[in-house]
Amino acid sequence: MQARGRLLGLGVGPGDPELITVKALRLLREAPVVAYFVAKGKRGNAFGIIEAHLQDAQTLLPLVYPVTTEVLPAPLSYEQVISDFYDQASLEVATHLDAGRDVAVICEGDPFFYGSYMYLHDRLAERYEAQVIPGVCSMLGGASVLGAPLVYRNQSLSVLSGVLPAEELKRRLADADAAVIMKLGRNFPKVRDVLAELGMAERALYVERATMANQKIVALDAVDPQSSPYFSLIIVPGERWQG
Amino acid sequence: MQARGRLLGLGVGPGDPELITVKALRLLREAPVVAYFVAKGKRGNAFGIIEAHLQDAQTLLPLVYPVTTEVLPAPLSYEQVISDFYDQASLEVATHLDAGRDVAVICEGDPFFYGSYMYLHDRLAERYEAQVIPGVCSMLGGASVLGAPLVYRNQSLSVLSGVLPAEELKRRLADADAAVIMKLGRNFPKVRDVLAELGMAERALYVERATMANQKIVALDAVDPQSSPYFSLIIVPGERWQG
Repeated sequence: MQARGRLLGLGVGPGDPELITVKALRLLREAPVVAYFVAKGKRGNAFGIIEAHLQDAQTLLPLVYPVTTEVLPAPLSYEQVISDFYDQASLEVATHLDAGRDVAVICEGDPFFYGSYMYLHDRLAERYEAQVIPGVCSMLGGASVLGAPLVYRNQSLSVLSGVLPAEELKRRLADADAAVIMKLGRNFPKVRDVLAELGMAERALYVERATMANQKIVALDAVDPQSSPYFSLIIVPGERWQG
Repeated sequence: MQARGRLLGLGVGPGDPELITVKALRLLREAPVVAYFVAKGKRGNAFGIIEAHLQDAQTLLPLVYPVTTEVLPAPLSYEQVISDFYDQASLEVATHLDAGRDVAVICEGDPFFYGSYMYLHDRLAERYEAQVIPGVCSMLGGASVLGAPLVYRNQSLSVLSGVLPAEELKRRLADADAAVIMKLGRNFPKVRDVLAELGMAERALYVERATMANQKIVALDAVDPQSSPYFSLIIVPGERWQG
């Protein structure tokens, strides 16, 4: 009987191709099939990070999101469309696994930190051997280029999504020693206003596409809300401990 | 005039030597001086991770903590003793920088995520060129070996220190979609009891020395509180999104 292939979730880091781990790079090179999530008509950030390492013999398996926005015309629901898509993507990956081929799913940042890989993992890890290689996540990439120590000693860190309603953002930020707010994009003005209301705007640092070639660091009050990309984040570092 | 050396904060990952990034490894190999924090009489986790890559021509600069516990006999205060130590360590590093030698400070996990490197950075980065290379932090190493997706979609993640008082832990955990509790050690029983009180114990996963050769995964109710090391952590993953 044909041995089954392994499902590999490979974190490839926040953007700078050199921020991939030695382990993810080794497993990527050994994998007969390389899968990656990508928006329709795009190359994909994760693909761009590892492209230089691909070899001719490797099969590429792009998993193309059917939608790029969470708001769809009735009777379509985002949840249903995206759930069907993950079902279908899992079947495509499983076809290779059943044929005995390892499938490396490359993930920007870390696979288990807000990554689409999680939805494949949840569907496949009970039936197939799965191995996850952690990666440098975007918030740590962001802290490094901002020169901003994130959390001192026993400070608590709150990682929040900019998609949250203003009231919830406000409540959580008011109680945070240090915070990272991800998924800005169209949510930027709301997040900026909440930070201002809380008197936290002066402590907040902003970066777009941290560690990528087109990285941009801008003062919070100079950010153009129309152009803030999804891959931007705000860091409110913990107060410096004088120790 | 002699050009000054650069201060490099290199994240070397959570323990598995292969989880260092390609970039940190390159900069490590190029650095004339390699500095690392270490407890008296120990080799140090960070040192163990990179030892195989060291070359004879490199100067080693161990920065040996003067104390290993936060409770000291009067009139000594931990804060003062450790602050003096970081002052002294910064001077030692600065001597090399002034002589034009780059100093790579290796950091377990990520330099800006609860790392001692932060205290050198705060003292030196205004006077010397500093570059921080982010690393895979311990919580992501932990999630990967536990096979536990950490946060789905717009869930919030709370990263907490086990050192916090029970009441604060309880308040923060009660409000968390997903949580990571670090720095367990002697704090393990307190944290376990708080999780039980909140009805979160069943969701909680425990790992010691994640990704290291002596990694140990144990059910929460089977952990021996006497032997839980400082380098253990608890993960309460976000609720699975069916998408």
